[in-house]
Amino acid sequence: MDKLILVTNDDGITAPGIAHLVNIAKQFGRVVVVAPDSPQSGQGHAITLEQPLRLKKANVFDGIEAYECSGTPVDCVKLAKHVVLKGQKIDLCLSGINHGSNAAINILYSGTMSAAMEASIEGIDSIGFSLCAYGWDADFSHALPHVQRIVDQVLTQGLTGCNLLNVNIPAKADTPIKGVKVCSQGEATWTEDFAENVDPRGEKYFWLTGQFNNMDLEADSDVNALAAGYISVVPSGHDLTKYEGIAPQKYIEHG
Amino acid sequence: MDKLILVTNDDGITAPGIAHLVNIAKQFGRVVVVAPDSPQSGQGHAITLEQPLRLKKANVFDGIEAYECSGTPVDCVKLAKHVVLKGQKIDLCLSGINHGSNAAINILYSGTMSAAMEASIEGIDSIGFSLCAYGWDADFSHALPHVQRIVDQVLTQGLTGCNLLNVNIPAKADTPIKGVKVCSQGEATWTEDFAENVDPRGEKYFWLTGQFNNMDLEADSDVNALAAGYISVVPSGHDLTKYEGIAPQKYIEHG
Repeated sequence: MDKLILVTNDDGITAPGIAHLVNIAKQFGRVVVVAPDSPQSGQGHAITLEQPLRLKKANVFDGIEAYECSGTPVDCVKLAKHVVLKGQKIDLCLSGINHGSNAAINILYSGTMSAAMEASIEGIDSIGFSLCAYGWDADFSHALPHVQRIVDQVLTQGLTGCNLLNVNIPAKADTPIKGVKVCSQGEATWTEDFAENVDPRGEKYFWLTGQFNNMDLEADSDVNALAAGYISVVPSGHDLTKYEGIAPQKYIEHG
Repeated sequence: MDKLILVTNDDGITAPGIAHLVNIAKQFGRVVVVAPDSPQSGQGHAITLEQPLRLKKANVFDGIEAYECSGTPVDCVKLAKHVVLKGQKIDLCLSGINHGSNAAINILYSGTMSAAMEASIEGIDSIGFSLCAYGWDADFSHALPHVQRIVDQVLTQGLTGCNLLNVNIPAKADTPIKGVKVCSQGEATWTEDFAENVDPRGEKYFWLTGQFNNMDLEADSDVNALAAGYISVVPSGHDLTKYEGIAPQKYIEHG
């Protein structure tokens, strides 16, 4: 019970998903929450440079020290480390439980995963949890025992070869979850478009719409594990180098 | 002269860096600019989900079709593809020239690199250019011949093993640039803190401060290439899987 666990998310401090995560985390030690004061989905690894940040105590979780922040999920982690928990060793950062999948390239757009990644860059073991159901009233009940077990295992056994896990959990279905698969980030894209409309002042605006397409039908990827009814666990990092591109690009040389 | 080149950035459509890039790009074909209407540094891979987006024609570059967008750099690329250039094949996406380094983990926070990455995810060859000098009045003169040559080489020879380059150029110095090194993303972090202050209404606020620290002194990384006076070119992708973490994490299994 001496572990210090930082909890954050991107759906905002009042989202049902983070309440579930806090309830699990508090069984393992001291929990401190620093989470956005408003929804920050799709904020990716954004940080706030042009604006000041606000940080306020929030009485949201019974008996838990919690703060709401005006910035992005990554801002929350930075403020947690440097202001709220200054000088204290954070044993684990948990982010989520996100309302919606962060499998495949969604990890790039996800504030939930970027917050966990930010903590991992600072050397803190981190897990981002996401439920593959977008609704605010999504049913998390089938997911919670798995979240609890994964947190337990990471706290007791540690992580090897990485310090960041991207965990996605299938939406509640008639059949129970089949198990957990450790896999790679799937190759998938969104087929997107923009809804075009006119505001009450007659000015045109655009709003992103999209449908997710898995292009990775053969591979041992997170999207395929989820489609088969498994929880996907992707050990993740922050190195975007495409190493197979280094040698072929050697022709870009001086003079 | 039949190439279609999309130009964007994160410093905003009026930044000096993008004007330099447009001037180079227009020598190689038809240029269309879709760039943010305000500074979007540090926006990472953020997309706008909770707000409508505005897109307006901008007479900023002489004789060049240009649009300013209320959203993030990634929003700009999505709007360019789906609204501005709907159905047209984009041959190359150029992002920048950024005012400030995007070497090492800065790629994660950078709107400039995220815009280029977004285009690369859509299968478009993309290059993000950054000058390692933050000032609005930075001297780009030494960088421009190199930017021109890299664009020329990518357009004529294509890219192999990747479709995204993160190009960083040393700040103007007394000694000329030594050459170009194709290298990997360096391991480096920011030593950060928050300046704490009180606004005119007596409310506390925080503002991020930071200093960049290279921890990768031995490796063949972008930060080291830059420190030695070379332009760094990092072939980049969007797969964050830490493959060496997959096998050790197998213990997270069901039941």
